[in-house]
Amino acid sequence: MPSSSSVRVACAQVAPVVGDPARNREIARDAIARGAAAGARIVVLPELLSSGYVFRSAEEAAALAEPPDGPALTAWREAAARADVTVVGGFCERGEDGRTYNAAAIVDAGGTRAVYRKIHLWDREQLWFTPGTAPCALHETQWGRIAVAVCYDLEFPEYVHVLALAGADLICAPTNWPREPRPAGERPIEVIRTQASAAVNRVFIAACDRHGRERDVDWTGASVIAEPRGWLLAGPPADFGEDLLVADCDLALARDKRFGERNHAFDDRFPDLYATAAAAAREARGRSAAG
Amino acid sequence: MPSSSSVRVACAQVAPVVGDPARNREIARDAIARGAAAGARIVVLPELLSSGYVFRSAEEAAALAEPPDGPALTAWREAAARADVTVVGGFCERGEDGRTYNAAAIVDAGGTRAVYRKIHLWDREQLWFTPGTAPCALHETQWGRIAVAVCYDLEFPEYVHVLALAGADLICAPTNWPREPRPAGERPIEVIRTQASAAVNRVFIAACDRHGRERDVDWTGASVIAEPRGWLLAGPPADFGEDLLVADCDLALARDKRFGERNHAFDDRFPDLYATAAAAAREARGRSAAG
Repeated sequence: MPSSSSVRVACAQVAPVVGDPARNREIARDAIARGAAAGARIVVLPELLSSGYVFRSAEEAAALAEPPDGPALTAWREAAARADVTVVGGFCERGEDGRTYNAAAIVDAGGTRAVYRKIHLWDREQLWFTPGTAPCALHETQWGRIAVAVCYDLEFPEYVHVLALAGADLICAPTNWPREPRPAGERPIEVIRTQASAAVNRVFIAACDRHGRERDVDWTGASVIAEPRGWLLAGPPADFGEDLLVADCDLALARDKRFGERNHAFDDRFPDLYATAAAAAREARGRSAAG
Repeated sequence: MPSSSSVRVACAQVAPVVGDPARNREIARDAIARGAAAGARIVVLPELLSSGYVFRSAEEAAALAEPPDGPALTAWREAAARADVTVVGGFCERGEDGRTYNAAAIVDAGGTRAVYRKIHLWDREQLWFTPGTAPCALHETQWGRIAVAVCYDLEFPEYVHVLALAGADLICAPTNWPREPRPAGERPIEVIRTQASAAVNRVFIAACDRHGRERDVDWTGASVIAEPRGWLLAGPPADFGEDLLVADCDLALARDKRFGERNHAFDDRFPDLYATAAAAAREARGRSAAG
């Protein structure tokens, strides 16, 4: 019998269509239904699923942005309620301040549980998005605690660590990983970073990527679900195309940070030493840049 | 013509013999000579090469400890001078305070350039070693700047980041990675973490592991040299046994932290945000532990 902390997690690796919010709502509804049909109770969707990613201008991004009570998240909430699943996915948010954010939401039958605004903006995102200023709030589910990171956020070990330290058992990461060259036989480096972050924090990470091509960008299509030792429970898909990954994750495993007889992933850290040394290094870099 | 920042780096994956310092000096001399013969100008050796690793007691570790002017480092310095190479390796140090440290040294014809005491102690090391309290001082070479991490240190992204932020181009990491089970076809997770740390900091990492069995411990034998995108230039050895890895590393590549048109591995970070969030998380954990 599965334990009460065991939950099937799905990553729906789909291909959003830039500039077609109605089609993207259909894609989301279908992905949520397929995830639920596969037995998943948590379904992760890619980054910016509501809008697509490759904008031509800040105006285009702003025109495709929606508030959390807009059509995209309303459709996701309805589909989540029908299927009785928790959904985590990326959307293009119009803030109450009128700004555009690369955001992600956690929604379920109870409504919108969390909205997180991506902190680390990659490349042209800086032209149309305002960065977030706070880590994702944790969402408590019956199986464990969920947090969100979006794509480039995963390249910052300090951010992933903050989520784990706050108590996240499962980090859901909507991504749009642009395809880069890689040596033959190598996994995308994004997957390697995801495995490392899962391992050093002893958490589950479900990274849901997109596939296909959008305007001038080819996507990696390398969704993965990693467990707390860093091993992959699912993904990346063999053909890096459309796929639904599922894995059973016993989230309680992420709550035991001890390993061996004497070690602990958190307590073995020396945060004051790192902070002092980093501050000194930054000051020296600043002096060197000024000098 | 190689650039002035390009240097051949070797990792000598050997098998130290616990309790036989004379034999371990021979192993070091031979490894340094072989590295130089292969054209390397920087030769990395495993952790605790002077003494072996699997001690039975704090007394045994203390009896095998040597000061930096003891026989082990003297032999390394002489061999480094003969071969005109820079050597980085791990040794069992008797401090001027009488304590025993899991240390590593950078030596060359000019003497001992740096001694670093491992900060993060793994498992039974806690029974015989005193942890270090300061990051490795950087050593400037004609090709670029070298820093040192020892084995379990590499599991702490914050520590690797501190070295990179201080200006390390190449992090030399003497290791003794105990062999753990891993899924078929997977690299050791230590290698994956090394690749991720190289990638997020855009530095070279040369991790020199040991091989074989010592008392009750089997070693992984997974030395690797990773470049600033995280890809492996060399290793792990196909049979995870005795080997000499070499790779030509243009250390100037580690000085460019920009990528794409708008991103920068250091400047894209939000250290104050991480620090504030981590402090809040630690306080909440403390309250929860007390409550």
